[in-house]
Amino acid sequence: MASTIFIQTPFQSKSLNKSLNTHFVPSFKLPVSLSFKPRTAAFSKRVHIRAGLIEPDGGKLVDLHVLEPERELKKREAASLPKVKLTPIDVQWVHVLSEGWASPLTGFMRESEFLQTLHFNSLRLDDGSFVNMSVPIVLAIDDLQKASIGESDRVALLDSDDKLIAILTDIEIYKHPKEERIARSWGTTAPGLPYVEETITNAGNWLIGGDLEVIAPIKYNDGLDRFRLSPVELRKEFERRNADAVFAFQLRNPVHNGHALLMTDTRRRLLEMGYKNPILLLHPLGGYTKADDVPLSWRMKQHEKVLEDGVLDPETTVVSIFPSPMHYAGPTEVQWHAKARINAGANFYIVGRDPAGMGHPVEKRDLYDADHGKKVLSMAPGLERLNILPFRVAAYDKTQGKMAFFDPSRAQDFLFISGTKMRTLAKNKENPPAGFMCPGGWEVLVEYYASLTPSDNDRIPQPVAA
Amino acid sequence: MASTIFIQTPFQSKSLNKSLNTHFVPSFKLPVSLSFKPRTAAFSKRVHIRAGLIEPDGGKLVDLHVLEPERELKKREAASLPKVKLTPIDVQWVHVLSEGWASPLTGFMRESEFLQTLHFNSLRLDDGSFVNMSVPIVLAIDDLQKASIGESDRVALLDSDDKLIAILTDIEIYKHPKEERIARSWGTTAPGLPYVEETITNAGNWLIGGDLEVIAPIKYNDGLDRFRLSPVELRKEFERRNADAVFAFQLRNPVHNGHALLMTDTRRRLLEMGYKNPILLLHPLGGYTKADDVPLSWRMKQHEKVLEDGVLDPETTVVSIFPSPMHYAGPTEVQWHAKARINAGANFYIVGRDPAGMGHPVEKRDLYDADHGKKVLSMAPGLERLNILPFRVAAYDKTQGKMAFFDPSRAQDFLFISGTKMRTLAKNKENPPAGFMCPGGWEVLVEYYASLTPSDNDRIPQPVAA
Repeated sequence: MASTIFIQTPFQSKSLNKSLNTHFVPSFKLPVSLSFKPRTAAFSKRVHIRAGLIEPDGGKLVDLHVLEPERELKKREAASLPKVKLTPIDVQWVHVLSEGWASPLTGFMRESEFLQTLHFNSLRLDDGSFVNMSVPIVLAIDDLQKASIGESDRVALLDSDDKLIAILTDIEIYKHPKEERIARSWGTTAPGLPYVEETITNAGNWLIGGDLEVIAPIKYNDGLDRFRLSPVELRKEFERRNADAVFAFQLRNPVHNGHALLMTDTRRRLLEMGYKNPILLLHPLGGYTKADDVPLSWRMKQHEKVLEDGVLDPETTVVSIFPSPMHYAGPTEVQWHAKARINAGANFYIVGRDPAGMGHPVEKRDLYDADHGKKVLSMAPGLERLNILPFRVAAYDKTQGKMAFFDPSRAQDFLFISGTKMRTLAKNKENPPAGFMCPGGWEVLVEYYASLTPSDNDRIPQPVAA
Repeated sequence: MASTIFIQTPFQSKSLNKSLNTHFVPSFKLPVSLSFKPRTAAFSKRVHIRAGLIEPDGGKLVDLHVLEPERELKKREAASLPKVKLTPIDVQWVHVLSEGWASPLTGFMRESEFLQTLHFNSLRLDDGSFVNMSVPIVLAIDDLQKASIGESDRVALLDSDDKLIAILTDIEIYKHPKEERIARSWGTTAPGLPYVEETITNAGNWLIGGDLEVIAPIKYNDGLDRFRLSPVELRKEFERRNADAVFAFQLRNPVHNGHALLMTDTRRRLLEMGYKNPILLLHPLGGYTKADDVPLSWRMKQHEKVLEDGVLDPETTVVSIFPSPMHYAGPTEVQWHAKARINAGANFYIVGRDPAGMGHPVEKRDLYDADHGKKVLSMAPGLERLNILPFRVAAYDKTQGKMAFFDPSRAQDFLFISGTKMRTLAKNKENPPAGFMCPGGWEVLVEYYASLTPSDNDRIPQPVAA
């Protein structure tokens, strides 16, 4: 039963089936078909249907966890090492690295990887091939920490409670060129970029790279850990379901019927192409998000209602949490979102308007061109094996009373309900037009905004997770 | 005779040998050997010595000139087309494109090429391979020009004297994301970047891409056109000289004996490696440079003196002008400088400290890490075939009374003579330490600064060429 999935299970067993497994309720039929741009459409390419899931980047999934028998030894070793304190977001990156989402990366980037990421959004492997890598996964330290490390070639990484998280070995310390990193990753240096202000502006002037030895799997104990399937676990789940195609949908917002429309329609198209059992990976981002995004726990409740209401088919949907923090770096970040899903077994990636985008922090405009994300994604080195599924923007069709793909030839029939508009309605306990979102999902949003104190509503709910 | 090379020849014949061909004077022997960093050194790789010059990017050199018999036809066609006025720097880019320096580009970038350049510093070819392309070669137009073009699929490009330069065909007009372009190309958006202020800040909000049909070879009629050898002409010259290796040296400054040291020593090393006839392409940049750089005509006079003085061997040196404008974009731009030289036949590229770098326009530091240029160059997609030759910085060795590679173990013996220091000495008609630069070359610099009016000296000499 869907409602069981949020029951806290303090002593979770590894063998639990952590995927969402609600009952199937037939979804309403959607008459509007998905439209693909001819130049970037995967469906205009020849798609080879083959047995087995897509290979991870670099040929095998990285697993950076220390084996159980070595754990105590590593803990004793760590006791004598220089220590580096991790922020909650640093821990999220350790989580990402440890499970191989960034395969073939084996730890925080050394300078060679950092520079390739900044300049080429890709890493060259020893065999001369490229894997995609568009956001720097780096660990910043300050002058004092650098001095304390001295000549040691390894350091212990502790969380904010001084718990040992990992050992970083064969370390390399190099300059943290903050301005250049920001400019090349975000395409702007304007003040007010959320991830920048949270993790870079006040960070140290040095970066420390090396190989990770992660003491134990990262857990958040927030009742949602069992949704945090690793790439290995997701691949097992897809195999268990005999998936012959996996299509991933990244999201960090509540699911409305426009999203549901395109996920359902994508599956229909994949079936038409000859796939027998396409599985949807509905993959909300679980790491750091900006203050005015809906927190993960509320989003998960909302997603649950959407599945309960039968808008999506639980039999062919795996809901899991993607542990990465959010950069809001548009065309640069969407590559990371896609690349990580290859490692989780997805060979189709759905990309919409302005992925990972946001408003310009200073100017009155979107930070990125709304079409650049899908264009850049379709051209990105290292993502050749992934089928990119761009889609047209969905909007509320007043003539049909439901979400449909926007048809510019009858623009007057459509209503765009922006994130801001949606938030305002939910805060004011108003209802959106019928058919915008399933009622159960909407109630969760209203409840979330009601749970904020008035000052929270104007200011900062805490960043999600960690 | 070298001194003849600056005589203006208003009616130049294509068949003129345009390469510098002064008499050979034996250079002094240099005891200090070139030092290569192990990780990036070409000499640590296996270098295959093979017959024939390196292939241009994409397999063949692009030539965008209209054939003589079609010229009149094209001029008549152009008369009825919408017109776009080019700045002198735009004309320099037409020059660059027309001769195939940017092969396989066939004109100003369309959006797909622009985005790949910004995000990946490379372009994917139809066969799936990559060529390097790190700086956007784009043409900006404003709203009025865009409106005047309307639905036309081609435009005529005119220079500032309304002379027809080229036709741009199969055009695509797209948004000019200035801030993003600047941030991703320079790694900063700080005000005061010379190329940005000259060509982007006040440029139009649209870019227009397409294929070029260039009416006639671009000439500047400044007495230096015969030094502007095209990639085709350079390749012919290297073949005429039976070069089995071509090593390129990009410069935009007067040549001092530190430069000469490494060029001479590189040749010695190539001979040791088994090459029989390595030829140096001494390749001063001839397009736009910032106001306080020494203008091209004076640099060419200075280079002439250096060859006359026998510091470099004219028998194994080809001096030619690289028509590109200068971006001052450090690690991003050095890739362009290298890639263009592949197209001209060079298979070795010398790279020093902080290539294409400058001071940060606002903060009191260099804009780029001095080592990033050579690191990025050694990792850049599409430059795998080029052997990168990094070298240590040269400085004036007081114990030897000449330029030598800096030895950190006896730092106190060395004197660094920065560009600023050199300019100050030359402006004040003072001499640098003996052995820093050949006296003839130094006199040219002193003469140049004396030729500036006092206000010029504080302000802006005009950009070079065009």
